[in-house]
Amino acid sequence: MGAEVAEPGTVRPGGRTARVRTAVLQAAGDTLAERGFAHLDLADIARRAEVGKTTVYRRWGTVTGLVADLLTDMAEQSLPRTESGSLLGDLKANARLVRRTLADPRQGALFKAVIAAATCEAKTAEALHRFYEIRVKEWAPCVQQAIDRGEVPKETDTHEVIRAVSAPLYYRLLTSRDPLDEAAADRAAEAAATAARAGVYVRSEAGLG
Amino acid sequence: MGAEVAEPGTVRPGGRTARVRTAVLQAAGDTLAERGFAHLDLADIARRAEVGKTTVYRRWGTVTGLVADLLTDMAEQSLPRTESGSLLGDLKANARLVRRTLADPRQGALFKAVIAAATCEAKTAEALHRFYEIRVKEWAPCVQQAIDRGEVPKETDTHEVIRAVSAPLYYRLLTSRDPLDEAAADRAAEAAATAARAGVYVRSEAGLG
Repeated sequence: MGAEVAEPGTVRPGGRTARVRTAVLQAAGDTLAERGFAHLDLADIARRAEVGKTTVYRRWGTVTGLVADLLTDMAEQSLPRTESGSLLGDLKANARLVRRTLADPRQGALFKAVIAAATCEAKTAEALHRFYEIRVKEWAPCVQQAIDRGEVPKETDTHEVIRAVSAPLYYRLLTSRDPLDEAAADRAAEAAATAARAGVYVRSEAGLG
Repeated sequence: MGAEVAEPGTVRPGGRTARVRTAVLQAAGDTLAERGFAHLDLADIARRAEVGKTTVYRRWGTVTGLVADLLTDMAEQSLPRTESGSLLGDLKANARLVRRTLADPRQGALFKAVIAAATCEAKTAEALHRFYEIRVKEWAPCVQQAIDRGEVPKETDTHEVIRAVSAPLYYRLLTSRDPLDEAAADRAAEAAATAARAGVYVRSEAGLG
């Protein structure tokens, strides 16, 4: 897979069940990336993964169930954050990771496909929301550290700062043909860091209290 | 329709051709909002619009062609910007308009559906990109005015500031179940204004020159 998640098969435990899951999720991800979610079919994926159709139907039941499991796996495989010692450095590392993932042809197409699928199906939407919650939670401590260092106000909504870094990159991916270059990633990080330092992400309850 | 576009039928010129287009685009928008793009069918839409199937096939040809025309119409019908005299005021007006549109049940679902459709089809993606270019161009002069007032640096990328206002709202719509409330809109505007004033959106060529 791409930047934000480890290569498939490199860190998996053994066992037939695990191997089947790896093969089926790889085939599902490849199909989503190549053809979008509208053409997803369990029998096709079983064939592509060289796994029995019955196994796939028994284990995942529906395309929706399979996409949800793929998103769970993407969250499990996703890379831990790095620490640079400054908020801007940490947010840049995050932005560059997101950018590399979305600019990767397979991963970018895969993310577009799961976002599209989530607009059509509540269960896929739930799995997608969980994926982003996990990623945001992984990176939020870098904002907490900035609070502890006195770089940003104490009542800053740490999750909202992390979301602010990703938002312009996803918006660019989905609504324009502008390239997802490193300058865009760095600008997203700088905007979030600048706004966070200025207190824009202070929780509004805190502001009122 | 919702906040960012005028009510259908209120400003249309007369004539049978225009009436047919209004009815068909209304039916297409309703169907997209209710059922998503995967189930769009020209014959269904013709029935819903009470327009002859042959007329619809002759005029729009394919579902893709119809969705592209719907996006053209959404751009044509979209509301002009307002001016408040300050960058933050203008960006807040923009953010609140985008928020009202995306928080509106029909419009929010419609935008999700066209974004999803654009991930699957190049022509729909082109029409979607054009829609956002038109909206960004509509609002960019408020950043130019902020440049002229000396509120933000001269080499600021005006389009990128406008995109920065929308991005967190679309990201929230697509990747979370968090409410699209006015606080989120105001925060998006404040973050973009703060970062713009700090020079984050200065074109990188300008920075290098």
